Amino acid sequence: MTDRAAEHAEVEAVNAAFYEAFECADLDSMQDLWLDHPESLCVHPGALPVRGTGAINRSWALIMANTPYIQFFLTDVEVSVMEDVASVTCTENVLTADDRTGPDSFGGAKAVATNVFVRTSGGWRLWIHHASPVLSVDNHDDA
Amino acid sequence: MTDRAAEHAEVEAVNAAFYEAFECADLDSMQDLWLDHPESLCVHPGALPVRGTGAINRSWALIMANTPYIQFFLTDVEVSVMEDVASVTCTENVLTADDRTGPDSFGGAKAVATNVFVRTSGGWRLWIHHASPVLSVDNHDDA
Repeated sequence: MTDRAAEHAEVEAVNAAFYEAFECADLDSMQDLWLDHPESLCVHPGALPVRGTGAINRSWALIMANTPYIQFFLTDVEVSVMEDVASVTCTENVLTADDRTGPDSFGGAKAVATNVFVRTSGGWRLWIHHASPVLSVDNHDDA
Repeated sequence: MTDRAAEHAEVEAVNAAFYEAFECADLDSMQDLWLDHPESLCVHPGALPVRGTGAINRSWALIMANTPYIQFFLTDVEVSVMEDVASVTCTENVLTADDRTGPDSFGGAKAVATNVFVRTSGGWRLWIHHASPVLSVDNHDDA
C-alpha cells in the first residue's frame, strides 16, 4: 500500500467511526472524534450551523436521545487530502426509526455530507461536518 | 491589524468575491476562484455533489444561465484558518428571480454554506463549496 493509499484508508476509517458512533448513540466516541476547538462546525441536515465543541456535543446528545434507531449506508465515499487537512464526501443513505415512523416501521432518507478532518498528534479529528438533504436527483454531472 | 486579522480579512474578501461572481453571472471570475483540481467539490443546495473543475464549471454555467437575478445578503460569516486551509461558514439570505417567480417578483430563500479555501501561490482558492437549504429554524444552539 502506498503512503497516499494508507493515508486515505486512515481518513476513511475515521469517517466510518463517526457514523458508527452515531449509529451506536455513543456520545463519548462522538466527542473524541471531534476537534476540541471553538471554531469546529456542524451543520445537521436542514439546520443552521452549530459552532464550537460544547454546542456540537449538546446537539449530538439531543439528536441521539431522539433517534431510537439509525443506520447509514454510505455510498460515493471520496477522500481528498491536502497536507494536514482531509475531506471526505459521501452520500448518506439513511434508515431510521423515530416518533414519526412508529415502532414497527422505518423511514429512509438521503443526505450528502462533507466531513473535513484535521491531522493532530492524536490522529485525524473532525473539524467540519456539513450534511444536507438531497432534494433533487439532478446532480449536474452530465450538464 | 494583526497577522491573524489580516488573514481572516483576506479569506473573507475571497469569500465575498465568490458571491459577487455568482451575482454578476461572471463565469470567468467564478472559474478563477476555484482550485483547479480533480478533487474540488461543489454541493449546490439540495443536490448531489459535483466533483472536479470541469464538472463544477459546467454546473455554474448551467445555474447562471437559468438565474436571471440573484442577490446574496450574507449573515453569520465566520472565518476559521488552520494553517493553509481556511473555512468560511455563512448564512446565505437569497433574493432571486427565475421562471417560477415571474418577471416582476422575487423569491426569497435561506441556505447555509461552508466554503473551504486552500492557500496557493496565487492566493486562496475554493476547494469545497457546500450549500444546504435551511428547512428548520431549530439550530440546537440553545440545546
